[in-house]
Amino acid sequence: MIRTRVWGENFHDRLNHICQRNYPTGMHNCIADALRSDEIEVSVSIFEDPEHGLSEENLNNTDVLIWWSHSRNEDVPDEVSQRVQRRVLDGMGFIALHSAHLAKPFRNLMGTGCGLTWREANEKERLWVVDPTHPIAEGIGRYFELEEEEMYGEHFDIPAPDELVFISWFEGGEVFRSGCTFKRGRGKIFYFRPGHEMYPTYHDKNVQRVISNAVKWAKPTSNERPNYWANVPPMEPLKKPITVFE
Amino acid sequence: MIRTRVWGENFHDRLNHICQRNYPTGMHNCIADALRSDEIEVSVSIFEDPEHGLSEENLNNTDVLIWWSHSRNEDVPDEVSQRVQRRVLDGMGFIALHSAHLAKPFRNLMGTGCGLTWREANEKERLWVVDPTHPIAEGIGRYFELEEEEMYGEHFDIPAPDELVFISWFEGGEVFRSGCTFKRGRGKIFYFRPGHEMYPTYHDKNVQRVISNAVKWAKPTSNERPNYWANVPPMEPLKKPITVFE
Amino acid sequence: MIRTRVWGENFHDRLNHICQRNYPTGMHNCIADALRSDEIEVSVSIFEDPEHGLSEENLNNTDVLIWWSHSRNEDVPDEVSQRVQRRVLDGMGFIALHSAHLAKPFRNLMGTGCGLTWREANEKERLWVVDPTHPIAEGIGRYFELEEEEMYGEHFDIPAPDELVFISWFEGGEVFRSGCTFKRGRGKIFYFRPGHEMYPTYHDKNVQRVISNAVKWAKPTSNERPNYWANVPPMEPLKKPITVFE
Amino acid sequence: MIRTRVWGENFHDRLNHICQRNYPTGMHNCIADALRSDEIEVSVSIFEDPEHGLSEENLNNTDVLIWWSHSRNEDVPDEVSQRVQRRVLDGMGFIALHSAHLAKPFRNLMGTGCGLTWREANEKERLWVVDPTHPIAEGIGRYFELEEEEMYGEHFDIPAPDELVFISWFEGGEVFRSGCTFKRGRGKIFYFRPGHEMYPTYHDKNVQRVISNAVKWAKPTSNERPNYWANVPPMEPLKKPITVFE
Repeated sequence: MIRTRVWGENFHDRLNHICQRNYPTGMHNCIADALRSDEIEVSVSIFEDPEHGLSEENLNNTDVLIWWSHSRNEDVPDEVSQRVQRRVLDGMGFIALHSAHLAKPFRNLMGTGCGLTWREANEKERLWVVDPTHPIAEGIGRYFELEEEEMYGEHFDIPAPDELVFISWFEGGEVFRSGCTFKRGRGKIFYFRPGHEMYPTYHDKNVQRVISNAVKWAKPTSNERPNYWANVPPMEPLKKPITVFE
Repeated sequence: MIRTRVWGENFHDRLNHICQRNYPTGMHNCIADALRSDEIEVSVSIFEDPEHGLSEENLNNTDVLIWWSHSRNEDVPDEVSQRVQRRVLDGMGFIALHSAHLAKPFRNLMGTGCGLTWREANEKERLWVVDPTHPIAEGIGRYFELEEEEMYGEHFDIPAPDELVFISWFEGGEVFRSGCTFKRGRGKIFYFRPGHEMYPTYHDKNVQRVISNAVKWAKPTSNERPNYWANVPPMEPLKKPITVFE
Repeated sequence: MIRTRVWGENFHDRLNHICQRNYPTGMHNCIADALRSDEIEVSVSIFEDPEHGLSEENLNNTDVLIWWSHSRNEDVPDEVSQRVQRRVLDGMGFIALHSAHLAKPFRNLMGTGCGLTWREANEKERLWVVDPTHPIAEGIGRYFELEEEEMYGEHFDIPAPDELVFISWFEGGEVFRSGCTFKRGRGKIFYFRPGHEMYPTYHDKNVQRVISNAVKWAKPTSNERPNYWANVPPMEPLKKPITVFE
Repeated sequence: MIRTRVWGENFHDRLNHICQRNYPTGMHNCIADALRSDEIEVSVSIFEDPEHGLSEENLNNTDVLIWWSHSRNEDVPDEVSQRVQRRVLDGMGFIALHSAHLAKPFRNLMGTGCGLTWREANEKERLWVVDPTHPIAEGIGRYFELEEEEMYGEHFDIPAPDELVFISWFEGGEVFRSGCTFKRGRGKIFYFRPGHEMYPTYHDKNVQRVISNAVKWAKPTSNERPNYWANVPPMEPLKKPITVFE
C-alpha cells in the first residue's frame, strides 16, 4: 500500500460558495476519495490542522504527499516548509497541484521563481500527451480536455523538467508545460497544472487518473536514506603516500 | 566584453602556509589572471570586502560570477545569498568551484542537499570528457589529469544536470560528476569540481581553459528580465463569456 | 567565419506558382541571403546538383548544414543520407527545417519515426519561448507569431530533446515542440518547425533571427574527431595479472 | 505478467570452453532463470533459431526484449533489425546488454556510432549509483562491484541518456556511463554495461537484480499504438477561411 496524504488549504472550499458547491466535502476529500484503491491508502490534512497537518510523525508515515494551496502559500511557516522539503529529499514523493507552483516547499525544491502568466476566463484547456511512454500518461489517449479552467501561460519559471509529460493548449492563445517530473535527492516530484478552485476539475476522470498514476510513479524506492556528507577511507590502495596537512 | 567577477573566500590563502605558497596573491587572483583576455574582463571580490563584495551594484555590473568558498559557506548572510540567487535567476552566469557545492546560493539554486563523500589523500584525478560537443570542453582532449587532488565521490546530491560534461575517476575507487551545467530562471550555472586549496589546481592549464570556456558559455542572453507573475488579457477572442467570480 | 550550407529541395519553388511568388530566387536563397553576416558565410545546394549537392568535399567544407525538404525526402539516396549522418556525428551542425522532420538523415539521427499530425488551413501559429536562457532564443521576446502557417501537432515522435526552446500554439487546437536541440556524436542538431512552402515564412524577421542564432550555436567545437572504437592499454598499474584468453 | 524474451547470440557459450564453463546451459538461460518470478514470465531465443528467434509473432508476444550479442552483431539481417526497432517504437521494452552497444537495432535506435574504448584485463569494475530515486537501482546500495570484467571507457558515443543510473569505475583508470535509460517512440530502452562472456557476470546477484528491475521499468504502457502521420481536421473553429492550394 502506498501511504498517500492529500494536503488541502481548505479555505476557498469553506469560504467561497462556488468552490463549496464544487467540493461540498472539501477539495482534498474529493481528491482523496478518487485515489483510494487496492494499492493506495489515503489520509487528508488541512492548513488549520495542528502543525498544519504536517508534523514529523505525519510526514514520516507518508510515502507520497499531494499538495494543493493558493491564498495561504505564504502563511505556511518556513519551518514546516523545510520539514516537507527535507522529507522529499529523503524519499517522499511530492505532487504539487495547480497554484502550488508558488507553495514554499515547491519553490525551494525548484530553486527558481516559479512565476507564470494567468487569467481567469472560463477557457477551454486541452492537455496533450507528449510522452506516451510515461506511466503517468497511462490510460490517457492522445489528449484530454477540460471545458473551463483558469489559464496558466509560459514562460513558466522552473528548471527544465526531467521529463515533460503534458503540454496545455488554451483557447486564449497560450501554451503551458502542464505535467512535469523532477527528481530531487531521493524523492520524485510531479507538478500537475489543472485545478482552479472555481471549477469542478478534480471530479474529472482523466485528472483523477493522472493523479493516481502519479502517486504510483512517485512512491519511494527502498534506496532512500539520510543525505550524505562523509569523509571516507580509500577503497583501493593508493600509489602515493598521504600527506597530513597541518 | 564579458564582465566577470571572481569571488574568493580568501581565508586559507591568507592563513594556511601551504595554500599561501600555492597562491601568493590569493586563489581569486590566480583565477582572475588566467581569465583576462580580449573577451573577458575581470574583477575580484573577497569575503572580507564591504557587503562581502556582493553589493547590488557589484552584482548588477557582473555578467558572470565565479565563486570559490569552503570554511565560510555558512557565514555568508542569507540576505547576500538571496541577492546572488535573484541575480542568477535574472540572467547572471554563475560558476561554482569545488567546495562551493555547499555555498548557500548554489544549494538554494539546486534545492537539494548537495552532499557528497570526500577524502584528502593526494590522489590522482582524471577528468573524462563525456560531452565532446560542449563548448565548455573546447580544446580539452579525451581527458585531462590532476596529479594530486582531494577526492569527491558519488552520490552527489544534486538535481540531474541539464548537461554532464566531465566525469572524474579517482585513484582510491570513486567516480564523480565533475562538470555539470544547469539553467535556472534566465541564468546559466556551471559546477566544476577541482580546486582544493592544498593543491596548485588553478595553475593547471586545462583547469584554466575549462573555466574560461565556462565564462563564455555562461554569459547572459539579452532575454533576461524580471521574473514574471502577471494577469494577462486573452490574445484570442474567447468563445465563451467570462463569468466574474464574486 | 562559420561555413554554412543551405540545402533546398527546390521543387515547389520552381514548380508551384504560389511558392514561386513567395520565393522568386528559391527558398534556399531566401534563407541564405538572410544569414550572410560578418560571422556567417553561406553556400547553397539543391537536390538537382551533382551528388545532390552533398559530395564529400562539400560536406567536409561545411560547418553547419541547413536542410529543407519535403516531397523528395524519400528520393535522397541512402548513401547520401549516410554521408550526411556521418558528417554530423563527426561534428557538423545540422539544422532541420519544417518537413525535414521526415528527411532521411534526420530520421536516422533520431532513431524514431518522427511522425506528427498536420493540417493546411492558414492558421495562426504562435511560438512561445520556454527556454529564455538559450542562445537560440536570443533577441526573441516572450513569443512571436506567424499569421498563416501549416499546423504540426503532437505527439511528435522524436526522442525527448536535449533542450526544448519553443512550443507552438495553433489556432485550431494543437500544440507542438517547435524548437528542439539534440547532440549526436560530435554534432549539434536543431529542429525548427516553421516553413511550409505555401507561406512566406522565411521572410519573417524572427524566423531569420532564430535560424541565424542556431547556426552560431551549432558550429562545431574543435573536439570533433573520428568516432572511437579502440582497444587501449591500462593507464594505471593493475593489481591482478592479465589472463590471455585463448 | 510481463512477457519477457531473452535473446542470446549463443556462440561463445557453445564454442569457447571458458564461456561454456561459466554458462553450461547458455548465457541466455542463466539470465532467463534469474528473471522468472510472479511478475515476469520468460522465453528465450538464439541467433540460430528460425528467423533468428525474432519473428513478427515472437516480437508481438514480447513485452520486454533482452538482447546480448557480440561477434554476430553484423550478421543479424537488416530486415530483422528493423523489425525489432519498429516493435520498440511501438512499445516493446528493450534491454541491451554489454557488447549489444553495437547491435544493429540498438545503434539504429540511438542514431550514433555507439563506439567506446575497451580492454580485456581482468579488472575490477565498481558501479556507482548516481540516481538513487530510480526504480532500476532499487535494492542496490551506494555501489556494487564485479571482481573481474572487461573495461569499457568513455567517450561512449551515445545520445545523452534520458536518465543516468550507474557510472562505472575501472581499476585501469577509466569511467563509463554503465546504466542509461532512453525512450524512443512508445518504447523504453535500458543499456546495461556488464557482461563480458569470459566472466560469470550474469550469476552476480546485483547484476540479476538490476536486470529484473529494468524489466519491470521497461514494460509498455497501454498507450502504445501505431506511429502517427495524419492529416487532421481543426478541433476549434478557425477565424480565417481555408484557401485550397491548387
